[in-house]
Amino acid sequence: MGVQKEFIDLAVRAMDKAREVTLGNFRTGINIDTKADASPVTIADREAERIIREMINAEFPDHGILGEEFGPENIDAEWVWVLDPIDGTAGFVTGKPLFGTLVALARGGKPVFGAIDAPAMNERWLGAEGTPTTMNGKAVKVRECANLNDAWLYATTPDMFIGENKKSFENLSTAVKRTNYGADCYAYGLLASGHVDLVCEASLGTYDFMALAPVVIGAGGIMTDWQGKSLDINSDGRVVAAGSKNVHGAALEKLGN
Amino acid sequence: MGVQKEFIDLAVRAMDKAREVTLGNFRTGINIDTKADASPVTIADREAERIIREMINAEFPDHGILGEEFGPENIDAEWVWVLDPIDGTAGFVTGKPLFGTLVALARGGKPVFGAIDAPAMNERWLGAEGTPTTMNGKAVKVRECANLNDAWLYATTPDMFIGENKKSFENLSTAVKRTNYGADCYAYGLLASGHVDLVCEASLGTYDFMALAPVVIGAGGIMTDWQGKSLDINSDGRVVAAGSKNVHGAALEKLGN
Repeated sequence: MGVQKEFIDLAVRAMDKAREVTLGNFRTGINIDTKADASPVTIADREAERIIREMINAEFPDHGILGEEFGPENIDAEWVWVLDPIDGTAGFVTGKPLFGTLVALARGGKPVFGAIDAPAMNERWLGAEGTPTTMNGKAVKVRECANLNDAWLYATTPDMFIGENKKSFENLSTAVKRTNYGADCYAYGLLASGHVDLVCEASLGTYDFMALAPVVIGAGGIMTDWQGKSLDINSDGRVVAAGSKNVHGAALEKLGN
Repeated sequence: MGVQKEFIDLAVRAMDKAREVTLGNFRTGINIDTKADASPVTIADREAERIIREMINAEFPDHGILGEEFGPENIDAEWVWVLDPIDGTAGFVTGKPLFGTLVALARGGKPVFGAIDAPAMNERWLGAEGTPTTMNGKAVKVRECANLNDAWLYATTPDMFIGENKKSFENLSTAVKRTNYGADCYAYGLLASGHVDLVCEASLGTYDFMALAPVVIGAGGIMTDWQGKSLDINSDGRVVAAGSKNVHGAALEKLGN
């Protein structure tokens, strides 16, 4: 099994190119919301995705593509790329350097390769089925955490939990050691590198979560939906990632299982 | 008036030294909470503050010092240094690179010099009364924001607002364009550099806010308590910083004035 080396190689080259665009539009000092269409974040988002799509189309024309900025292409293909050119748009817009470019490759709807690229940090996590996750080429590993009440939890913002999800998250949040906010996809990289024990989020798009699971799993962690099921292209956008099995299980319980 | 060059020079050299300690203990891959006294964050916090104190004592023995880790020294002096060796401890502990070292100098209890040093980002903001704020030696400026509902707001976490403060903050948060969390002192640097319009926080210690005001004010911004009064050593830990006067005034109204 595993993922062909040339697919990963394409992803790496595409993210290198996308970095030029995202960094070139980062901290340009304009209040980016006054002109939505011509704002640096919109330009960076579209241009980065366009570059990645073009490279995929040129090298693997039979692959499908699902991206945040443009329409789906050939998504019944065996291999489908899932792209989020800028994850953490609100961070990007406010000069916070933790935004990321997310590139995933799904086979039969299941993510088998994922990359979290943090251009402003010059950090890139790569996770592929059957191989250890790396950060800038070096293998990384989740850390052990004995109990849920010792766990450091991340979520992008409490505002992502609505209705029943809010109650579930509060139930989890009050059971952990500490809840931190505001790291977007970067939190999953920190988890893969053994600095964070738990990430729990909701209201994510397919683009947001597909790349994260291979990174977390390849580092020895677990990442599922709130029912404990493996993530795929049809998952509902509620995810929980953990470094330890027992913390993951205890988190699912707090979320209502 | 102004701040003597040799005071600022000392702060810069002290922060250089403190960086070695904080970065040397950052992302060391240990779950830092298992042994509180010997944890990397505790070591870094104490050692960084000790280094800065020693340099102040050696060069300006008549100055006072108020630091987070050790007791107050000579705080009735005309000049008093206020130190937070690691602001954003929860970020530090989880590998998030936005933590900062805060160094302020107060004269008669009022902050006349402040520095936000972000070691893992290699970014340092310096603000001194009567001179423009710099980031890595380059002058920075806040950005204009026409209205509160166009403003991008930061706060470290919603959990810092308790009781009446929570209601006030929610009143503000629902009136802005978007609320982001999780940047600690770094958010004030982003505001000074013109990427963020508003930062509102509560439950801060004297160590947390004293260094921030000179940075924000020297960049053309405004930073006060929730009543609109200038910050000093006795302020109550509820602060609001803005790039524009009208946004600051509108924020104070939402907070209950």
